[in-house]
Amino acid sequence: MSLEERYLENEYYTEAEHGEFDLFDLGDFELARGRTIRDCKLAYKTVGTLNQSKDNAIVFPHMYSGTHRDMEMYVGEDMAIDPTEYFVIMPDQLGNGLSSSPHNTPPHEGGMGNFPEVMIEDDIRAQHRLVTEEFGIEELELVLGWSMGAQQTYEWAVRFPEMVKRAAPIAGTAKVTPHDQLFIDAHMEAIRSDPAWNDGFYTDPHAVVTGLQRHAQIWSVMGLCTQFYHYDERAWERAGFASVEDMLANFWEDWFLRMDPNNLLTMAHKWRHGDVSRNADGDLEEALGRIEAKTFVMPFEEDMFFPVSDCAHEESMIPDSELRPIPSLWGHFTMFGVFEEDKQAIDDHIGELLETPA
Amino acid sequence: MSLEERYLENEYYTEAEHGEFDLFDLGDFELARGRTIRDCKLAYKTVGTLNQSKDNAIVFPHMYSGTHRDMEMYVGEDMAIDPTEYFVIMPDQLGNGLSSSPHNTPPHEGGMGNFPEVMIEDDIRAQHRLVTEEFGIEELELVLGWSMGAQQTYEWAVRFPEMVKRAAPIAGTAKVTPHDQLFIDAHMEAIRSDPAWNDGFYTDPHAVVTGLQRHAQIWSVMGLCTQFYHYDERAWERAGFASVEDMLANFWEDWFLRMDPNNLLTMAHKWRHGDVSRNADGDLEEALGRIEAKTFVMPFEEDMFFPVSDCAHEESMIPDSELRPIPSLWGHFTMFGVFEEDKQAIDDHIGELLETPA
Repeated sequence: MSLEERYLENEYYTEAEHGEFDLFDLGDFELARGRTIRDCKLAYKTVGTLNQSKDNAIVFPHMYSGTHRDMEMYVGEDMAIDPTEYFVIMPDQLGNGLSSSPHNTPPHEGGMGNFPEVMIEDDIRAQHRLVTEEFGIEELELVLGWSMGAQQTYEWAVRFPEMVKRAAPIAGTAKVTPHDQLFIDAHMEAIRSDPAWNDGFYTDPHAVVTGLQRHAQIWSVMGLCTQFYHYDERAWERAGFASVEDMLANFWEDWFLRMDPNNLLTMAHKWRHGDVSRNADGDLEEALGRIEAKTFVMPFEEDMFFPVSDCAHEESMIPDSELRPIPSLWGHFTMFGVFEEDKQAIDDHIGELLETPA
Repeated sequence: MSLEERYLENEYYTEAEHGEFDLFDLGDFELARGRTIRDCKLAYKTVGTLNQSKDNAIVFPHMYSGTHRDMEMYVGEDMAIDPTEYFVIMPDQLGNGLSSSPHNTPPHEGGMGNFPEVMIEDDIRAQHRLVTEEFGIEELELVLGWSMGAQQTYEWAVRFPEMVKRAAPIAGTAKVTPHDQLFIDAHMEAIRSDPAWNDGFYTDPHAVVTGLQRHAQIWSVMGLCTQFYHYDERAWERAGFASVEDMLANFWEDWFLRMDPNNLLTMAHKWRHGDVSRNADGDLEEALGRIEAKTFVMPFEEDMFFPVSDCAHEESMIPDSELRPIPSLWGHFTMFGVFEEDKQAIDDHIGELLETPA
């Protein structure tokens, strides 16, 4: 089946938008919560070359609402993740619109409003198969990710401790917090309360526009921080926006409105239930204690989802770890690297971690 | 006209719910933005006795979604605001449901969806008339308030500097921040997007229940702080709730769902446009520089609306002022005094301010 056939419905989820990428065939993939995705595809992109001894691989999953494309800015010859040195695998989440997802699966085959519950551990089981079966890799130099990418990083490090030499969970937690769940419920409800959503069975994803707008609005409140929006600071101008309203339209709505509502809901549900302690019968300390990776826990100061204190709490349970907070007015979205110094700070920490023996 | 006739529509806005209170007749009250409320009533409650020299009065306005009742917990014989010593006036905001409001004004008289734009300065002009015309008071020992009450406190201190001897703006700002505006837009949109709201012309306020539920949900995300909701902290249990879901239903929804949607929107609009710099052609430093009151600026640490840094920024422009941050997991809702030590800390600062010569 060609990519064009799989991604017919929404021009956002195409190679025209995201560049070339690959699909790994998972066959009929059984999910943690019981259902199976038939003929399941895991999308991914690689950069660099796997060396002979297969010991130069990095896995770099992405955040909520993202794809592999959004991580590419942290891969480059002048950066810590240098593709002349490393083989970088950027997997796409199940449900993100490039892998098997609600919008590219017909309703009668379990798509759209029928799409099954997917969990973070399903992503990591799928990625593990890609890494081992497709590439024959037994050890990873580094697993890193931001936000839901951090959830995936933790799941990798807890589930396959002997494989992960280094880990960098950035602005995310190993176990979702009740406050995150409240936030996720609010932005999911913003979409689901739009009558056009119709329990996930819309004929045109762009018809759910008011739901997606409310979703973007809630993200604008929580995604950065109060200080970013201070009228003296006017940080939005440095970011290239004439006003807060301009930023709402041309940053937040521009980001979300092209996406498929069910895809977003599938990812949000995964986020809402992310918890590595399920690997140890609910004992978080036991689960995090299994991590063998040299770990840099990298929260963003002023992050309204994942305050430094929540990340420090988890870091204290990881044997060989350091807390590396990064200051920025961009709050949770520091990772977007809109301010050059933020991107540089993140890259510096990654570089230091890669140079640390593990 | 009897209270019963004025407050027919919603049992929440009755003396059965709020106890006895008074109405001050403002006549036809012209608003800052141009329209007039005919036969306008300002509700208020007083506690204590005005002394002969009329120099023992305190004005204590309330927050968004509140009434005078919500401030009464800070007035008592064992507290700083002791009614055996002070005459305490607790005015109700225009639009709060006890004063003239959308829900108690028929549509053809400018009520419901036709209710005019009201501004913080309208509240303060109305309260000034109450204080001077009804009671003949020329000087106030203290003006204080929380959140929108802080906005009103600032407006009092800037507009009538010679009258206000002491001021305590608690967890609120003199000039609304763009981040607050984003938050206000999100929770107003939660109500307005409910089809039952019908541009403000519903026949039953309780029919707008899903809009009010979404509104409550957004407040649950921003009203406290992430740390409150930490799964190890389980602060909700100390607050008397079995779970976060229980707290959403029996704290947040219990608070908002009885209220009138248009009343909430009228108050939210006021909040969104609060800015004392309008008294000085947009120059905030000039406006705050006019304050003669001895001022304690009292932000709550972990407040997701009004971080200490925003409040400190304004405090630095007030001549005779001190910054008095109060730590609490309750974030913006520290003022609810659910944890006894929070209430005590607030009362201690108020007591110290009242004892300071001014």
